[in-house]
Formats: sequence, C-alpha cells, structure tokens
Amino acid sequence: MADPRFFKCEGGKTLDELAKLTGSEIRMPNGPLVTINDVAPLDAARPDEISFFDNVKYREQLRVTNAGACILSPAAANDAPASTILLLNESPYKAYARVAQLFYPEQKPAKMISPKADIDPTAKIGADCIVESGAVIGPGVVIGMQCRIGANAVISHAIIGDHVRVYPGCCIGQDGFGFAIDPAGHVKVPQLGRVIIEDHVEIGANTCIDPGAGPDTVIGQGTWIDNLVQIGHNVKIGRGCIIVAQVGISGSSVVEDYAVIGGQVGVAGHLRIGKGARIGAQSGIMRDVPPGVEMLGSPALPIKQRMRQVAFLNRMIKKDTD
Amino acid sequence: MADPRFFKCEGGKTLDELAKLTGSEIRMPNGPLVTINDVAPLDAARPDEISFFDNVKYREQLRVTNAGACILSPAAANDAPASTILLLNESPYKAYARVAQLFYPEQKPAKMISPKADIDPTAKIGADCIVESGAVIGPGVVIGMQCRIGANAVISHAIIGDHVRVYPGCCIGQDGFGFAIDPAGHVKVPQLGRVIIEDHVEIGANTCIDPGAGPDTVIGQGTWIDNLVQIGHNVKIGRGCIIVAQVGISGSSVVEDYAVIGGQVGVAGHLRIGKGARIGAQSGIMRDVPPGVEMLGSPALPIKQRMRQVAFLNRMIKKDTD
Amino acid sequence: MADPRFFKCEGGKTLDELAKLTGSEIRMPNGPLVTINDVAPLDAARPDEISFFDNVKYREQLRVTNAGACILSPAAANDAPASTILLLNESPYKAYARVAQLFYPEQKPAKMISPKADIDPTAKIGADCIVESGAVIGPGVVIGMQCRIGANAVISHAIIGDHVRVYPGCCIGQDGFGFAIDPAGHVKVPQLGRVIIEDHVEIGANTCIDPGAGPDTVIGQGTWIDNLVQIGHNVKIGRGCIIVAQVGISGSSVVEDYAVIGGQVGVAGHLRIGKGARIGAQSGIMRDVPPGVEMLGSPALPIKQRMRQVAFLNRMIKKDTD
Repeated sequence: MADPRFFKCEGGKTLDELAKLTGSEIRMPNGPLVTINDVAPLDAARPDEISFFDNVKYREQLRVTNAGACILSPAAANDAPASTILLLNESPYKAYARVAQLFYPEQKPAKMISPKADIDPTAKIGADCIVESGAVIGPGVVIGMQCRIGANAVISHAIIGDHVRVYPGCCIGQDGFGFAIDPAGHVKVPQLGRVIIEDHVEIGANTCIDPGAGPDTVIGQGTWIDNLVQIGHNVKIGRGCIIVAQVGISGSSVVEDYAVIGGQVGVAGHLRIGKGARIGAQSGIMRDVPPGVEMLGSPALPIKQRMRQVAFLNRMIKKDTD
Repeated sequence: MADPRFFKCEGGKTLDELAKLTGSEIRMPNGPLVTINDVAPLDAARPDEISFFDNVKYREQLRVTNAGACILSPAAANDAPASTILLLNESPYKAYARVAQLFYPEQKPAKMISPKADIDPTAKIGADCIVESGAVIGPGVVIGMQCRIGANAVISHAIIGDHVRVYPGCCIGQDGFGFAIDPAGHVKVPQLGRVIIEDHVEIGANTCIDPGAGPDTVIGQGTWIDNLVQIGHNVKIGRGCIIVAQVGISGSSVVEDYAVIGGQVGVAGHLRIGKGARIGAQSGIMRDVPPGVEMLGSPALPIKQRMRQVAFLNRMIKKDTD
Repeated sequence: MADPRFFKCEGGKTLDELAKLTGSEIRMPNGPLVTINDVAPLDAARPDEISFFDNVKYREQLRVTNAGACILSPAAANDAPASTILLLNESPYKAYARVAQLFYPEQKPAKMISPKADIDPTAKIGADCIVESGAVIGPGVVIGMQCRIGANAVISHAIIGDHVRVYPGCCIGQDGFGFAIDPAGHVKVPQLGRVIIEDHVEIGANTCIDPGAGPDTVIGQGTWIDNLVQIGHNVKIGRGCIIVAQVGISGSSVVEDYAVIGGQVGVAGHLRIGKGARIGAQSGIMRDVPPGVEMLGSPALPIKQRMRQVAFLNRMIKKDTD
C-alpha cells in the first residue's frame, strides 16, 4: 500500500468495474468476485490487491504472487498461480495505468497558484492551473488550461497549450546558444523565436528548452520529455514522441511524430529523425534517420548492423588473444 | 516578425546604416535603397526585411526567398534571387548578429534587482546588474558591472567579472565532489577554493560549476558555456572557449584558449586540452590533447584516424555478411 | 590561504596534534616542532603550512614545495625536499581531509531555516537542519537530523535520514517517467513509491531522483552522488557507492554496495551492478555486472577486453593506411 503520508487511495473497487474500465476479460478460477482495495507490485501484493505482469524478467514473481488479481496478457495466463483472478488484456501495462489512476487520482495542492510563485502581470495563466512555489513565469508567457508548473521552474518566451506538465527546475525559453564565433569576443545573435508547447506534453525536472533563434522551437502534442534533457533552438519535435533522460538535441533538428529517443542520446544539428524511428540509448546521430528505423551506436547505425559490428569486435579480441 | 508579446523591434533602418555597421558591400540590383523594418529567416522574410545565408543546407531557401535584402558571402551571391539586395560580407553570420542586435536591443526588466532574489548582505553587486527572481547569492560573492543573474540561479564562493550572464537554474560555487574514499564512510575534503569568472562569460541554464578544492576554478574571458554542463573543481578554462550542452569536465583539467568542446563530451581529470583544439560531440578525452588538434570518438582519436576507424568497421561488417 | 571572504581558518595547530588526528608518523629532518597555520596545495604552500601528496602527476611540485610539512605515503618520502617535515601515512588524502576539516570546520548560515524556504506544514524537519533559501519541501516529507537542503532544491515524496546533504537545484521525488505508450496519448502510470535516502548521503547540484513507481527508490547509507545525475524510479543504490556527474541510471536497476560509477555512464533498466564493481566513464551498461568487476565502453566490456579492443582497432587503422 502506498504511503498514506503522500498518497490517498480510493479503495474498494469491484473487479467488474476494473474489467470494464480497461476492456479486460475476467478469468476467475475460484469463487465470488472480490473487492479490490489497492494496486501493488507482484512481490508485495496481498489477496485484496491487484497487480500486473508485463516484463518477462518478473515471471518468477508472477508464479508466486499473493495478489488477489493480476492484469496480464492471455499468453501469460498459465504462469499465474491457480488462485489468482486474471484480467486478460493485450496491453496489460496500459490497463494497469488506468486501474492505478482510478485508485490514486492526481492530488491537487491546497493553493493552486502558490503565493511564492512569481508570475509576470502580462503572463496569461489558463483555468485550473497549478503553479508551484518558486516558479518564475516571465512577461507575455501564455499557459493554457489545467497545466501544472513545477516548483522553481523558469519559463519565458513560451506559448503553452492545455494539460501540460512542467516539472520542477525546468528552464524553458531562455536564450539559446546563439552567437557568431570571434576571437575578439563571440557576438551574440538575438534569439527572436519562442517555445511552442502543444497540449498534453510532459517536461521532466531540470530539462532545458531553448527558444527559437528566428523560427520557433516546437514540442508537439502528447510528447513526453524526461529529466535533464537539452533541446536546442529551432528544434521541432512532433506528436507522441518519447525523449528519455539526458538526451541532447542540437539546434534546428526535427524529430517526427512518435519517435522514441533513448537516454543520453545526442542528435547533431539540422537533422531529421523520421516518424516512428527508435534511437537506442547513448547513440550519436550525425545523419538523417529514415522513418521507422531503429538506430544504435555512436556514430549510430541501423541496429542490426550495429549488433554485427559489436559481435565482430568481440570475435576479433578473442582471436587476438588466441 | 518576432512576437511582439516578447520582443520589441526597433525597425526602420536604411541599408546604408546596416552596411556600415557590418562592414558589408551593398550590391543592389534594382532601384532605390529600401528601408529595412525587421530581420527574418530566409523562408519567412518579406520584401521589407533582411535575412542571412550561412549554411549550405539552406541554399534552396535562399534561391526562392522573398527577403528584400540578404547578408551573404560574395561566393554565394549568384544563388540569391535577382531581385534581392545583397550585403556581401565574408562573415555573414556575424554581420547578421550585429544587424539583429540593432533591431532588437536587449530588453531589461522593470526591476533590475528582483525583490524575490535573495542576496546576502555581504555580497557585492556591481552597477547596472540584473538579478532575477529567486536567484540566491551567498556571503562574500562579488559580481561586476552589467551582469545578469538568471532566475533561481544559486551562486556562492564566486568572484565574477563584468558583463557576465548566468542563466536560470545555474549552480555555481557549491562544494565539488571532494572526498577520500573509505568503506566506513567517505571523508569529506573541505573545498577551499573559489569560482573565478572573468568578463563577458555566458553560462547556460542548469549548468553546475564547482569551486576549487584548494586552487580556484577559473572560467576565462569571453568563454561561452551552454546548458546542463558540469565543470569540476580546479578546472581552468581559457579565453574564448565554447563548451556545448551536457559536457562534463572532470576536476583539475585545463582547457586552453579558444578550444571548442562539442555536446556531451566527457573530459577526464588532470588533463590539458590545447589552445584551439576542437573536440567532436560525445567524445571521451582520456589523454592530453595538443593545441589545434581535432579529436573525435570515445576514447578520442585525431579526427582523420577516427574517420578511418569508422570506415574500417563499416567495411568489416559488410565483409562479415558476404 | 583560502579567501577569508568565504572561509574561516582555525589556524595554529601543532604537528603533534595533526599526527595524532590522522594516525601519521612524524619524520622531522631539522629542528623543533613548528606550528601549522593553514593547509595549501603543494605549489602554493608556505613554510608554516601543510600540504599533501597523493597523485604522481604532481611529483615535480612535491620536489620543490615550500610547504613546512607534507602528508604523504612512506614510499614517496624521498621525493620531498630535505627541509620538509613529513607526516607519513598510508592514506595521505584521507589524512589531509581530516586535517583540512580541523582547519576549516563547516560553516553554518546565520539562519538555519531560511525564511525564504517553503516547507509544507505537514513535513517534518529534524534537529539542527539547514534549509536554504528557495528550497521547497512538500507535504509529508520527513528529513532527519543535521541535514542540509540546498537553495532552490525541490523535495517531495521522500523520507530522508540523518546527516544528509542535498545540494542546490536538486529535484527529488517528483513523478518519474512512467507511462504506457499509446499513439492516442501516452497513459500516465501513477507513481506510488517514495524516495528513501539513508544517513550520510550527499546528492549533487541539479541532480534528479525519481520516486518509486510502486516499490521505493532507495539511496543507501554513505553513498555520494555528484551533480546532474539522473536516478530513475525504483532504483536501489547500496551503501558507500560513488556516482559521478551526469550518470543516468534507468528504472528498477540495482547498484550494490561500494560500486563506483564514472561520469556520464548510462545504465539500462532492470539490471544489477554487483558489489564493488567499477564502471569507467561514459560506459553503457546493458547487462548485469558481476561483483568487483571493472567495466568500460559502450556497450561495456570487462576493462582488459575493452583495452584489447581499443588496441586492436588502433592497429587496424594503421594497417589500413600502410
């Protein structure tokens, strides 16, 4: 059970309710429909709690779980204990997400706009927004409805849609790294664009997003960005992308819809990463990536080639010592 | 045109004025000197606006631009539309920077020292400084003239020159990672040096600079540091260097004047990177780098060797599958 | 001598006192016991100051130092000037740390809890804690005794032990990157765990630690974490570990006691890094690492294999151009 000092559980849901919510089929081995009081991980769940199974690494935990119910794919049903009620679903993690949201709806702070936030009088904040302590929102910034701006985040030169969440410590819209190199003193290039953040975007803690230099920097609808990410000026990120922690995307590059960029990846400037491309963690992208391709390595290669390269090197060092 | 909610354009400049400012030669194909009202990118500029061309990737945009005037190198003059007035300049980006600064002079906030900044009474802040909301400046810190300290930046144990810009969320001068390893509990080594930041330095958002352990950490005049960079204790960075986002420089290393360090590079401790060296993005530097050399890879090699290495590997994986 | 604007030196210690404190043997070449007034690096120390020698890179500085006394290992004794009093110690850096702590005890701010910190009324702060300006501590957070929470740090959903130091700008306990991917809009998975930080932990500036998704995220006793590090949800870090700047550890991975992880390393999710393992800077860990092993490279190999791989590649590019 989640620590009640931090989380409030809305317990007491029926399995029927949970199955309907998630579009799952109930497989009930032994007896009456139980009431489910909470969600819990496989190895901690009790008979009145529901868990989920979605990663084969945890198959042993599934086999011995005490969870009263478990959400899993039909293919895994045989690995659950005979006494566990199953909610069969082809997307068990997504189904779990819905269930957990039902038990633990998002909590709102007592004061929606902290008196310790510093909001410029010319900024516009939409309805039902939360602005936490120490957040600094600059002149002219526009924020849509039901956004949450984390503590000590700093936002300027930005137009933000609805349902956007900015985590603590983010820096959005401060001048990017724009200058003409000169031994007598680099010459600053005025940064005249904005940061446009579309609806339902999440931006992780201490992430930095530079505004455009002339065009705008754009983060597309439903894209999720993790902590400590750097987004350079003029970058365009499409819809539904996933950008994992500590990624750096250099100026003027384009990331098309639904691309997934693994942790610590670096993307050089003025490139295009195609729709649905997947970039493995720590890769270095120095050329355009076609849509749907999976890349790995620095410099990155299509993943099969990179795997062959790694295998080749491993063989060579074995030979080398024979 | 830049969004007037964020930027104020001082329009109405003559081409003569712009040519003089930048030391450019005017080549005017058709008729009287126009008045220029704004700067804009090639693909958005209108007939009363000036643009620039400096990256061959955008040659197609140059060919069809509607910009009334364009700054470019003489070698590119033939690629501009016949109707565009040209400002010929061997450093078009630097010339554009000057022009853009003229149209968009830096805007100052209404209150130069935010009442929501927290400045220790023993700190000294020079004339005409801007200190933004939530910035925390510790005891004894000295800041020169015309500096700008961003929102929620935290500065301690630092002596800062004139015309320095510290972006939001920076942490400067907090104890570095100094300890003697001990299984019974690592023993903290008091960090007794300072951070010395010379004139005209820029330090990006959420960047961290540790003070010296005994000697000082020094950032030389005119050096620009991007976002999310880590500078360890005792590091000495020379003049006019460029340190791109997410670089990490370990303790006691020296970066000589005018070196350029690409994004996500890691530099091990106690090394020297020579004057004017150039380190490619994501490189790992584990040895001294001679002056003027260009390095790439992890571990880094001189760039030609690294390119050969990459080419060799690509050939091998092809052979491997034949 | 450390800048008195920032540091207060408690000078005037006898060599006897310092030798006893550190368990060192005094070797005094010429005359009476001197009084030591300060610590200083080898190249700056004066005859009334004590220095230390622990890195062979600085042997030349040792040979010509003016330090009145020097802490070093017996094996290095012959490299010191004949006139230098020696404190012989097998762990000279640790001994120096103790001596420097004696001369420079940690300074406390005038106000232990800054009136500009924002502490939720339901949070519990132990005795003798320092909470700096702009720190934001959320509902239910528990902090032990003698902790120091840096300026503008943001802490929520966390239980923190005694003698913990959180540096400025840290973000601890804000929802991790938990969601089920869906083209119609990623579905947020409620993050229901906490961050548990045990005693004597240090957490560097602008580092981010996500709370558990269900289980907790745990940082073990005496572990030191550097700046700009990312710790994902459910990660368990053991006791006495060292995590250098800009490391990223993905969700649900385990780092056992006394492991050392170099700068910019990436660790994939759901892995185990064994007790006392050492991971070289910039490595990419994609598989479990056995206890005590030293790994390097991306993907990481045992260090000897990685060294062979690098040597092999260097030979190949030489051959290639012959």
